[in-house]
Amino acid sequence: MANQSTVSIPAQVISPAELLHHWQGHRQLTRRVIVAFPEDKLFSYSIGGMRTFAQLAEELTGLADGGITGIATGSWPQINALLHHSDLPLPAAKEEILQQWDVVTEKINALFPQIPLERFHDVEKAFGMYEGPVYASLLYLIDNEIHHRGQGYVYLRSLGIEPPPFWDRP
Amino acid sequence: MANQSTVSIPAQVISPAELLHHWQGHRQLTRRVIVAFPEDKLFSYSIGGMRTFAQLAEELTGLADGGITGIATGSWPQINALLHHSDLPLPAAKEEILQQWDVVTEKINALFPQIPLERFHDVEKAFGMYEGPVYASLLYLIDNEIHHRGQGYVYLRSLGIEPPPFWDRP
Repeated sequence: MANQSTVSIPAQVISPAELLHHWQGHRQLTRRVIVAFPEDKLFSYSIGGMRTFAQLAEELTGLADGGITGIATGSWPQINALLHHSDLPLPAAKEEILQQWDVVTEKINALFPQIPLERFHDVEKAFGMYEGPVYASLLYLIDNEIHHRGQGYVYLRSLGIEPPPFWDRP
Repeated sequence: MANQSTVSIPAQVISPAELLHHWQGHRQLTRRVIVAFPEDKLFSYSIGGMRTFAQLAEELTGLADGGITGIATGSWPQINALLHHSDLPLPAAKEEILQQWDVVTEKINALFPQIPLERFHDVEKAFGMYEGPVYASLLYLIDNEIHHRGQGYVYLRSLGIEPPPFWDRP
């Protein structure tokens, strides 16, 4: 077993720094899935009446953007702002989606280390609507991204494009 | 903020009990996705040359089964056993898949509370192959399930079937 006592940190399931690394690892993989889409298919292709991957990516960008604000500051964007999820403009090209993605990546890296450990169990209405502890809202954001990215894998496979490996995360 | 001091538990991101609840909440949703498939489509339908949802469910069952054994005991099933992932027989009907699912659910509920908190940072080769801390192997199992379940959502949508809501987890 790892000897936690040598670093004087109480044992815990996962530390905030590890959770940040986990989140950003997933976001980096999702970024590669966006890149894997041909420009036109990103904005036009879907299956079964679902949203395009550009629309899904826009949701994920907005939820991460508003989510880290709420998690770090307690000031959540409200649900009516959630229709677009973010103050960022609606992207019209893959490059814009990626630029917004990278802005949010830096924002998360800047704000996450400021979250006090105690805060993960604060109970709040995420986005003014979804009540629960902060850790659960954060896991929801990550899980929602994995869920929609998995859908993007099906889009890519059905287009004959090999997606980046799911396990290839830092 | 929640006053953790009243219960004398050091602040942490997520407790083992909360993580168990999170995992089983996802597994319960995946179970409902299995149920949502028509029997024949479960074993025959796929998109883009991917596996059927029965095959994906069988992987998820086996990884959860072998995974909780390894996480709780340190004795991991090896990779050659991983081709089927589990000692459970290959299911040939939806009902068998669900029965195996429920066996693993009970096994997880029995073993998870026995995991010492310190163990989540033990570094081991999960399934004899994937080296990392135990918490990361556990998150991998959960994330892999969300990933493949998201693919099942696309299968269902393309079949004209409304999947259970992603957010509807206990």
